[in-house]
Amino acid sequence: MSTFHGAVGSELLELGDGLDLDPGAIVGYRPGRKISNLRLVLGPGAKIRSGTVIYAGSRIGAGLETGHGVVIREECRIGCRFQVWNHTTVDYGCEIGDGVKVHANCYLAQYTVLEDGVFFAPGVVTANDPHPLCGACLKGPTVKRMARIGVNATLLPRITIGEYALVGAGAVVTKDVPDRAVVAGNPARVAGRVEDLECKVGLVEKPYPLPPLPG
Amino acid sequence: MSTFHGAVGSELLELGDGLDLDPGAIVGYRPGRKISNLRLVLGPGAKIRSGTVIYAGSRIGAGLETGHGVVIREECRIGCRFQVWNHTTVDYGCEIGDGVKVHANCYLAQYTVLEDGVFFAPGVVTANDPHPLCGACLKGPTVKRMARIGVNATLLPRITIGEYALVGAGAVVTKDVPDRAVVAGNPARVAGRVEDLECKVGLVEKPYPLPPLPG
Amino acid sequence: MSTFHGAVGSELLELGDGLDLDPGAIVGYRPGRKISNLRLVLGPGAKIRSGTVIYAGSRIGAGLETGHGVVIREECRIGCRFQVWNHTTVDYGCEIGDGVKVHANCYLAQYTVLEDGVFFAPGVVTANDPHPLCGACLKGPTVKRMARIGVNATLLPRITIGEYALVGAGAVVTKDVPDRAVVAGNPARVAGRVEDLECKVGLVEKPYPLPPLPG
Repeated sequence: MSTFHGAVGSELLELGDGLDLDPGAIVGYRPGRKISNLRLVLGPGAKIRSGTVIYAGSRIGAGLETGHGVVIREECRIGCRFQVWNHTTVDYGCEIGDGVKVHANCYLAQYTVLEDGVFFAPGVVTANDPHPLCGACLKGPTVKRMARIGVNATLLPRITIGEYALVGAGAVVTKDVPDRAVVAGNPARVAGRVEDLECKVGLVEKPYPLPPLPG
Repeated sequence: MSTFHGAVGSELLELGDGLDLDPGAIVGYRPGRKISNLRLVLGPGAKIRSGTVIYAGSRIGAGLETGHGVVIREECRIGCRFQVWNHTTVDYGCEIGDGVKVHANCYLAQYTVLEDGVFFAPGVVTANDPHPLCGACLKGPTVKRMARIGVNATLLPRITIGEYALVGAGAVVTKDVPDRAVVAGNPARVAGRVEDLECKVGLVEKPYPLPPLPG
Repeated sequence: MSTFHGAVGSELLELGDGLDLDPGAIVGYRPGRKISNLRLVLGPGAKIRSGTVIYAGSRIGAGLETGHGVVIREECRIGCRFQVWNHTTVDYGCEIGDGVKVHANCYLAQYTVLEDGVFFAPGVVTANDPHPLCGACLKGPTVKRMARIGVNATLLPRITIGEYALVGAGAVVTKDVPDRAVVAGNPARVAGRVEDLECKVGLVEKPYPLPPLPG
């Protein structure tokens, strides 16, 4: 049931066992930019849904799972068990750790860094140019391990989101966020610490207990 | 001109008359989650545009019209005349009434409830987990009948948006909104009532006259 | 390698030389609305990527380049060298000048006007109805030449964004923005002028020097 459209050539595709590729999905799409290495390495067990396009020239670990209409560009380095949902674009040159989950309708700007276990809710966008279209110093944010970013949040270029931090829905984050901080608003301000959050619904006592959640 | 890719099996597809399915659109996509009932019921007169994927296991009324690249997941119950535009995802388990219109690039989180006549402008996102990735109490917002949500607005989990309420563009709604209230900002605050709004352009006197607009 | 799905008829398609159309892309899609002129004029040198749909009834200049899953609706007039990225929708009746770049996951409402050299970062949404779903006075914003709009920004109906203005990431712009102003926040307020901005990274002295940047 696999369909390869526009693949750069079989000698440049290193596809792991068990690839489950929907009809209409594309693996090995040739970038418009000239890059030095077009080899695509895709680990075993990938599930790639319809409408998704994986560019040549990236390296992706085992267990990739995509939704529909996902685009992963060239020169990305992505760890194992990356889950990425409908109509999200991972632009070129991103570095993504293990166990990362990026939900639907997100955009990861070039050179965004997501460490292990990071979660992006739907609609999150990262930026990489402090003065568009200057382009002289493109660099995305760095999101440290296990940080969670709420729906429709915006992360500005070159900032660091600390480990286990929680960025509230709709927040516009313009500066660094400390480890385990909760931030919200436009511009985002620190509103507390994750270990102090209580579940108002009452189904769990502490949603973010110490010590750190297992990855 | 119909094309079925990945359909779960004709015995599980109950498709109404007059289906207009673009090439490359998919009806009856098999969910990754295990669910008890894979039957897809799609009412008559559906118009489904290219790139759209309708999962198995949902029940959708007459007159569905989609844009391009729409995803409707499993276990949704959707009324008649649902219009949903380009690259919007309706995640699983949503309940949607009659005459609802959800515009482009929206994301409806699992268990979101939209009553009759609700309108979502482009880019609206709903959330369902107060403490991602806790997952213990997933529940989307409930948007009551005829409420209208402006572009790029964000609706937090478990809140209720009242009947005929108007959520302003870019608002981040963190708590319940009364019937007929106008809210705006991040976080959203009540800014007035819909019946007091006046049209600055002057083409109509009152955009939201009392009694309620007909559905 | 060209594939035409759903084209309105070759006599109504006026396609320039050198068209590079990915498999699965669609040129000449028939609108659901009745319009007086279904002719599609597409200038030479277009590069149209997979999943993209160009409707009949628009006029687009030379050098169009699209990402994946772009939708350009009918009755748009678009200049030369338009670049538009993944999953952006340009709704019907938009006017777009030369050298405009609209990034991923944007939505341009009907009757939005973008002058020459305008840049939209990812996730920007424009609105056109001050009182949805009134519909009596639909009109998008007008974005003057060389203005730059940051990620996830929201532009309200009928406003004007001045020449060379810079709209900050996540800003919700509810009123006119003067030429060369920098605005940010929800609602957006003037935060300075582009010629006073300094690059904190230090790679360039002034990101927006006077006189105006060359187009």
